[in-house]
Amino acid sequence: MGALSDLFGPERVAVVGATDREGSVGRAILTNLQADYTGEVVPINPNRDAVLGLDCYESVAAAPPADLAVVVVPSGIVIDAVREAAEAGVDDVVVITAGFSETGSEGAERERDLIEVAEEYDLNLVGPNSLGVMSTPNGMNATFGPDNAQEGSISFMSQSGAFITAVLDWANDQDLGFKDVVSLGNEAVLDESDFINEWGDDPDTDVIIGYLEGIDHGREFIDTTREVTDDTPVVLVKSGRTEAGAQAASSHTGTIAGSEQAYAAGLDQAGVLRVETVQEMFDYARMLSGQPLPERDDVAVITNAGGPGVMTTDAIGDSRLDLASFSDETLETYGEMLPDEGNIYNPVDVLGDADASRFEKALDAALTDPGVGAAIVVAAPTAVLDFENLADVISEKKEEYETPIVSALMGGESTAAAAEKLKDNGVPNYFDPARAIRSIGALSEYRDISRTSHEEPTDFDVDRERAREILEGAKARDDNRLGVEAMDLLDAYGIPTPEGDVVDSPAEAEAVAKEIDGPAVMKIVSPDILHKSDIGGVKVGVETEDVADAYEDLVTRARNYQPDANLIGIQVQEMVDLDDGTETIVGLNRDPQFGPMVLFGLGGIFVEVLEDTTVRIAPISEPEADEMIDDIQAAPLLRGARGRTPADTDAISESLQRLSQLATDFPAILELDVNPLVAGPDGATAIDLQLTVDTDKL
Amino acid sequence: MGALSDLFGPERVAVVGATDREGSVGRAILTNLQADYTGEVVPINPNRDAVLGLDCYESVAAAPPADLAVVVVPSGIVIDAVREAAEAGVDDVVVITAGFSETGSEGAERERDLIEVAEEYDLNLVGPNSLGVMSTPNGMNATFGPDNAQEGSISFMSQSGAFITAVLDWANDQDLGFKDVVSLGNEAVLDESDFINEWGDDPDTDVIIGYLEGIDHGREFIDTTREVTDDTPVVLVKSGRTEAGAQAASSHTGTIAGSEQAYAAGLDQAGVLRVETVQEMFDYARMLSGQPLPERDDVAVITNAGGPGVMTTDAIGDSRLDLASFSDETLETYGEMLPDEGNIYNPVDVLGDADASRFEKALDAALTDPGVGAAIVVAAPTAVLDFENLADVISEKKEEYETPIVSALMGGESTAAAAEKLKDNGVPNYFDPARAIRSIGALSEYRDISRTSHEEPTDFDVDRERAREILEGAKARDDNRLGVEAMDLLDAYGIPTPEGDVVDSPAEAEAVAKEIDGPAVMKIVSPDILHKSDIGGVKVGVETEDVADAYEDLVTRARNYQPDANLIGIQVQEMVDLDDGTETIVGLNRDPQFGPMVLFGLGGIFVEVLEDTTVRIAPISEPEADEMIDDIQAAPLLRGARGRTPADTDAISESLQRLSQLATDFPAILELDVNPLVAGPDGATAIDLQLTVDTDKL
Repeated sequence: MGALSDLFGPERVAVVGATDREGSVGRAILTNLQADYTGEVVPINPNRDAVLGLDCYESVAAAPPADLAVVVVPSGIVIDAVREAAEAGVDDVVVITAGFSETGSEGAERERDLIEVAEEYDLNLVGPNSLGVMSTPNGMNATFGPDNAQEGSISFMSQSGAFITAVLDWANDQDLGFKDVVSLGNEAVLDESDFINEWGDDPDTDVIIGYLEGIDHGREFIDTTREVTDDTPVVLVKSGRTEAGAQAASSHTGTIAGSEQAYAAGLDQAGVLRVETVQEMFDYARMLSGQPLPERDDVAVITNAGGPGVMTTDAIGDSRLDLASFSDETLETYGEMLPDEGNIYNPVDVLGDADASRFEKALDAALTDPGVGAAIVVAAPTAVLDFENLADVISEKKEEYETPIVSALMGGESTAAAAEKLKDNGVPNYFDPARAIRSIGALSEYRDISRTSHEEPTDFDVDRERAREILEGAKARDDNRLGVEAMDLLDAYGIPTPEGDVVDSPAEAEAVAKEIDGPAVMKIVSPDILHKSDIGGVKVGVETEDVADAYEDLVTRARNYQPDANLIGIQVQEMVDLDDGTETIVGLNRDPQFGPMVLFGLGGIFVEVLEDTTVRIAPISEPEADEMIDDIQAAPLLRGARGRTPADTDAISESLQRLSQLATDFPAILELDVNPLVAGPDGATAIDLQLTVDTDKL
Repeated sequence: MGALSDLFGPERVAVVGATDREGSVGRAILTNLQADYTGEVVPINPNRDAVLGLDCYESVAAAPPADLAVVVVPSGIVIDAVREAAEAGVDDVVVITAGFSETGSEGAERERDLIEVAEEYDLNLVGPNSLGVMSTPNGMNATFGPDNAQEGSISFMSQSGAFITAVLDWANDQDLGFKDVVSLGNEAVLDESDFINEWGDDPDTDVIIGYLEGIDHGREFIDTTREVTDDTPVVLVKSGRTEAGAQAASSHTGTIAGSEQAYAAGLDQAGVLRVETVQEMFDYARMLSGQPLPERDDVAVITNAGGPGVMTTDAIGDSRLDLASFSDETLETYGEMLPDEGNIYNPVDVLGDADASRFEKALDAALTDPGVGAAIVVAAPTAVLDFENLADVISEKKEEYETPIVSALMGGESTAAAAEKLKDNGVPNYFDPARAIRSIGALSEYRDISRTSHEEPTDFDVDRERAREILEGAKARDDNRLGVEAMDLLDAYGIPTPEGDVVDSPAEAEAVAKEIDGPAVMKIVSPDILHKSDIGGVKVGVETEDVADAYEDLVTRARNYQPDANLIGIQVQEMVDLDDGTETIVGLNRDPQFGPMVLFGLGGIFVEVLEDTTVRIAPISEPEADEMIDDIQAAPLLRGARGRTPADTDAISESLQRLSQLATDFPAILELDVNPLVAGPDGATAIDLQLTVDTDKL
């Protein structure tokens, strides 16, 4: 067990604020603790001698030493109660009491005080505003909810207490068991990452599941979780996915919602299996806690009915899985074994007159085929099929082979006893074959997650000092937006830019033009003039001898257009051949929860109309950057679709990684867009730049 | 009742091939019929005097006159049995016997003979290879399945017999009732359209549901179904959606699978609510058979728990529905009614200490708000909430208001009695709020379907004879592919093309060029030379005086490139200004099941890389053509996104409709592509054309 072993496995629990008043939270917790807890419960209440038959103490200090204090006193005296418990030597505290940051500024202040006390005594503190915690090995139910959990190997956390009561009630009905359960409450101290970390070290936890509305420390979450998911699957509902949902979540928890795009990237980078419904969460959990991981994604379908076989095949088509192609040997076996009307190809139709023993032979053939990674039995009721016998057969095969097996016994009452048997034997069974296939898909996804080796981001040799100087230029200018005049920032971080510079005299312009091969592009540089082309503020193909005149003309145009515009200068830049290149967009952004993000997309309509972009939380490694390029819908264009010259995707990938390093090095960069980054067959060049800087952070 | 009233409501059923042999299909059917059927059953078997206690007759003719014959004799004598029944005056026949087209060529021939007999006697024939038919009002179970249906208002058809046995077993468990059930079998005579038509006229059928793997007569299906769906919702699973699934379906039913794109379009045009799983099918059916249609898509969420409220809001965000915005009056009511910590905005949080009466007040406020189109109650278990009281409240509100109400009582055992109550009172209830929201979405979708008035396709004034002549040109040429030389085909159907012609002499070229305003585009026209530009086979901006030389040059290039190429001539065409236009693709295609289809997409990468196209089954009406334009992902580009000049979408729409008419008029056109059709701000012009003709059909 990890650092929180006393939280879930205390030998003595003090209930601070214990009472026998009917309908009170204090009574509910005490009653729940008295039910099955194998340790000792000590009520703390200075106004009572005994509560519900237990000796009551004036203070935690006066009571026999406890490992865990559960605090249910009114919010105004919670801080004192926690301090008193800490002074008495208790390191683990659950604050049930509400009325903290979820209720406004006064409550928020109370929560800050609580955090201070927790930090002073280095407390493992759950809550405030928590339903409590449970752990089944010692029978501890330190919640005020109506249900207790059954024993099992799933550990469960939730930012919504109501979600816990709903799920436990439902899970008990489904015979689903838990190891630990925690209601995270306001997460003043311990948050989701702490519990993921704890359960990652817990040999009794096979699967971690959770309901979250927000993740406060995104990067820490990613780093913790991706390590845990090497061995322990983490299945999460993250709600507030939609705009309306995010707004509801924000008003529910009082936190600023991060963007769904950031959450999607962060959860994915963390190796989380993200689900949208409770049913999916438990389908996945049940599957991941009881089945081996498939070595291949090829699924064998054994069915006694054509129609359901087709539906199952559709579900496979919808998933990341494939319909297995059988070996000649397997096909031969089926040919010998099945009546003529049977289908020996996958989905295997053992026909409506099949009994359990024909299913058994068919399963044996599929499971010994090296091309099969998982098997599903789909059975409709017939006159000859005994579902219980079939359940026995499937259960035996589950023991016999190291291959995941699931079933879809498609019926109601007639399948009930068989379904019970399968549940007891750890074979997931569903009415709907599509649900069974999705669960196999989760196994396959987790196999890939658990086998991903997370590379460290490359540490590029960059000129950080030069970058800092350029960013500080914004401070001097009293404008937090920078444009092409800051192109050297990209240079400093090794992202190729065209030859050229921003100048403020015709002579300088000429000098720069002479350094450039061929004619130049010249542009007005001003944060106040956005649509330069509209006022003739961009000149292409300017020969060196015309550069000085062009300079004067551009300055005049700028002055005429807007006399008081902040004119930073005129950019004189090498012309980049766009014909052979593809315009991409690379950028940076900051999410309130996950911090810096790197963005990638194709230029123009792809971003503006089709919103075809992808993001990752920075810093990103090389494989993560490579993945981004394949992520967008328009990726084939970069790879050379339609007879195009393939773009240098390695160069794009490197630009993304270098930008990621820039974002990590300089929290002052709030937003940055390189639009376009032109990716040619041999290299990628940043043509234009815009960024916003928080100069206070420099 | 419709034309099939004797099939579902016969007064006397003859079972041809009745037997008491254990395990036989004949015995199973007789037993099922004897169970509850209120009419009379007459066994027919020349070898018995009595079967299962019933007098047995030698032939249908010898028995008292029957309205329905159920045939279970061996496949070799089915034809004789059917003919004998028909001769005896029976018009409605169900052929249970298998061994027809599903088994190979011999069986297929047998099926053709069966169809002949059915046509000769004008029989309503179900099957062969059918599980049978059921109808609950008269208790008739003329199937050999293990379950009987409960009485209800859902009528159900399936191309898979096993699917019926599975679903009935499951539905009985869920207390779901049916009016009629039919196992369609091989659909030699009666098919899905016949039953949709029948049930559309049946006052006892509220919802039609079905499982289909293929639709044979697509256009007939669309026309029948869209009429029925004005009053009766049709909810279908069409499996074989994915490539793997389609292949499995094709090997299961022995039919050629149509394309999923055609099915998607056809089902949509027919007004079908398409679902993917059995659960969805029944969620929708239950909802549509018991709830009023919502007048608005704005949903009020009343919950006692923040987290589940957020999940519900996400589900609304995922759906076609919106979160309702409450009126000031409603907000005021909530402000007065709810404790301070409650949320008066949608989702309304009535808090964890809410009892049923607080839910009631909250529901009343929402349901009297004119901005609310539907309501959902989401409740987690708490110490104070009595779920049964809540179920009473919800049931009362359902009676009181003309607004759909659903619930998500989130629990297991503790909600069971309440759930039962809700079921009895016709309130759909789910553990998962997302499922409840999807069901409201189905109501909203069906509201739109039922209110769609289906316009007739416009009958454009076209030159059909001219079109026929051009198509017949292909016959003469002994090549079924036509190119720009057939541009007049588009002209004949009123689709604008540039000025110009295909010529075969320099003089003719000059003559055509003189007719054209400004310079011309000239191109080699040859079905054998595909990449004309690569060999310099396209010249743009040719002035009239250069046209003769250009002609010679192009011919030489063609001859040099491929001496034996079929050189149809040289195209001399007006130059179309592409700068102001958007390249689109319009085309025709033929689906084996649905016949002619019209296709639309944006040119270039949109079609080739992003596959951003949409299709409709022809003929299409003006609203259908308009819808196509908005259907594609890139639609904003046509509407003027990114500062573009909006394209003349009316002109595109008209081109689509005119093409639709061309496809309907000439079944000989197998495929046709206008690529591009350039849509400018004022009109659309077809620039290039390719088509394939089946000259035998001319």
